[in-house]
Amino acid sequence: MSTFKKRYLLTPGPTMIPPAVVEARAKQLPHHRTPQFYELIKSVHERLKPFFCTKNDIYSLSASGSGAMEAAVMSLLSPGDTAICIDGGKFGHRWVEMCAAAGANVVTIKVENGHAVDPQSVATTLQQHPETKAVFTQFVETSTGVIFDIKSIGGHVAKTNAVLVVDAISGLGTQEFLPDAWDVDIVVAGSQKALMLPPGLGFVSVSPKAWKLIDAAKNRAFYLDLRRYRKGHESGEHPFTPAISLYIELNEVLTMIEQETVEGMWKRHAWLAEATRAGIAALGLKLFAEQPANALTAVAVPNGVDGGKLVKTMRDDLGVTIAGGQAELKGKIFRIAHLGYIDRFDVLTGLAALEMALKRQHYSVEIGRGVTAAEKVLVNDPQ
Amino acid sequence: MSTFKKRYLLTPGPTMIPPAVVEARAKQLPHHRTPQFYELIKSVHERLKPFFCTKNDIYSLSASGSGAMEAAVMSLLSPGDTAICIDGGKFGHRWVEMCAAAGANVVTIKVENGHAVDPQSVATTLQQHPETKAVFTQFVETSTGVIFDIKSIGGHVAKTNAVLVVDAISGLGTQEFLPDAWDVDIVVAGSQKALMLPPGLGFVSVSPKAWKLIDAAKNRAFYLDLRRYRKGHESGEHPFTPAISLYIELNEVLTMIEQETVEGMWKRHAWLAEATRAGIAALGLKLFAEQPANALTAVAVPNGVDGGKLVKTMRDDLGVTIAGGQAELKGKIFRIAHLGYIDRFDVLTGLAALEMALKRQHYSVEIGRGVTAAEKVLVNDPQ
Repeated sequence: MSTFKKRYLLTPGPTMIPPAVVEARAKQLPHHRTPQFYELIKSVHERLKPFFCTKNDIYSLSASGSGAMEAAVMSLLSPGDTAICIDGGKFGHRWVEMCAAAGANVVTIKVENGHAVDPQSVATTLQQHPETKAVFTQFVETSTGVIFDIKSIGGHVAKTNAVLVVDAISGLGTQEFLPDAWDVDIVVAGSQKALMLPPGLGFVSVSPKAWKLIDAAKNRAFYLDLRRYRKGHESGEHPFTPAISLYIELNEVLTMIEQETVEGMWKRHAWLAEATRAGIAALGLKLFAEQPANALTAVAVPNGVDGGKLVKTMRDDLGVTIAGGQAELKGKIFRIAHLGYIDRFDVLTGLAALEMALKRQHYSVEIGRGVTAAEKVLVNDPQ
Repeated sequence: MSTFKKRYLLTPGPTMIPPAVVEARAKQLPHHRTPQFYELIKSVHERLKPFFCTKNDIYSLSASGSGAMEAAVMSLLSPGDTAICIDGGKFGHRWVEMCAAAGANVVTIKVENGHAVDPQSVATTLQQHPETKAVFTQFVETSTGVIFDIKSIGGHVAKTNAVLVVDAISGLGTQEFLPDAWDVDIVVAGSQKALMLPPGLGFVSVSPKAWKLIDAAKNRAFYLDLRRYRKGHESGEHPFTPAISLYIELNEVLTMIEQETVEGMWKRHAWLAEATRAGIAALGLKLFAEQPANALTAVAVPNGVDGGKLVKTMRDDLGVTIAGGQAELKGKIFRIAHLGYIDRFDVLTGLAALEMALKRQHYSVEIGRGVTAAEKVLVNDPQ
């Protein structure tokens, strides 16, 4: 086996990093308590709004996406509050665990792996629990590759006093998501997805309706108390020592995003997803997600193939890292992401590596068939 | 057209740069008149020997490959000396021009574009010009993608008093080249090829036979006088202010090369070249080179295709930079390099981009056909 290989990262976070961002990282770091850095923080928070498609203020935490999720939970809920959590996979289950840890009365809407939540079930559950303070869900459930119908869910939640909190960590920037029009109160995002940055920054946008609940809540958090982030927000003073280098990189990547536009990002991800699905179909493989997201494609491991070994061959022998299944889906699915700093040739690389790895397990696969199907989509630019 | 694209560099220099090298570049630069830097220079010069497959000392110049070529010419030749130059393309012609500029009596062996020199013609020309001081040739003529039979040429030159100077800039590290066994006296190399570095460093290895001629020559050079480089060589003292950052990067890349081994590099380039040629053949296109090198594949532009536009579409619309033809070959050939920091998926990317660009000119091409043929070679590791 050749020791020489490049590394391709086709996982649903972290994603690959644009060279311009890597170069920005090499710059000398400014101190965070300087007028220059205050301006930078203020500027990136404003420039994130078109990416989020929101007029609400956006707050940033030196934390992973889960830290930002917990900031929403801890800031909104008081012990004993009722929270509805949609659990359609690993990350939905994380909402359940976080709300329980916060002392909430958790009402879980369990959704089968690979399926999307029925928005009507949210309406019904809200009727059954009129005391509900907040509804927690995913935009894209990363563990299954499913996209949820946030617009419909938002319509139901908006009719109540409850706020809607959406983990848009994997989905934001990959397909249409309009939090203000769809009545989403809190959007949670992370740096290592469509934002094309290393992990380490979490983001939370907060609506006036959510702030009311936060201000009334008995918050037991400190680092994750969103009110602390609101305090110096206008002047660009971060409440803690921020992850300075990531802000420098964020500043850099926002220029790329402004050039492409968020609508351009949606189109690109739709196109990459369409090509990937065409490749998977041409290989005779089955999509796992009922409503597949544009951020990643989850595929059922076919009979006779060792799913763990498939991922390992692609990563260790071919240099192409994709994700396997998590928890009970381990070995049953694999997930190819087309998320972030990805262009048409990365999709071809992912499918070629998949074909090679299937061949190495003596699975009946026609080399080039999936790649060709994808290339037929990718020969044209995104529409 | 989408503004978002990655950049792929599939040209015969400069090549893509490994991430580890880019990161090494971000380090603080040491001063070059320090014991630490002397050690570094000494070390990289020694570590380059296995890459060159020579026991001769290797000297480095802050210069492009052409600067290193001229250092050989200016150091070896005195005005009026006879030099035989093999001119099989743009870079062979450069030898002719440099030797003429040095005041030499130039005997040119003209080789048709796309063809390899007949080693016997070198033997004949040497017999006709027994006063010849040096024979200048290419290992790989980059402008046509042709490889020359240096082993046979070396056998003929070794029987005379002349020295053999080989421009191995594009070829070194991409296929077997044994200067000591083949009686090559001076090997010229550059940083931006199989060495995977940015341009800016030129290298020259010098045999004892060549040193004798250099020491006897009336050298009119200063910066390009190889004797100045020999002076501080043992202690690591560079005669001029060296391009420090490139030495830091060279130090980094040598570790990668030692891991792969030079034989591993030859195998990888042979495999990438084989796959590229298979893809080109499957598309019904014709190779331009009679004896194709493993560093790059030159292809005749087919009838009905605008060669300049093809290269432009690949670069500007698809992000994949290949090289067109130079001088009289402009518009007649294109050249896809598989040289340096390149793996199997880059070859697929290059061929996919070629297919897409041909399609955009309404050339009859079956999308996926070339890629599939290449993938069938690349599904197995290099042998």
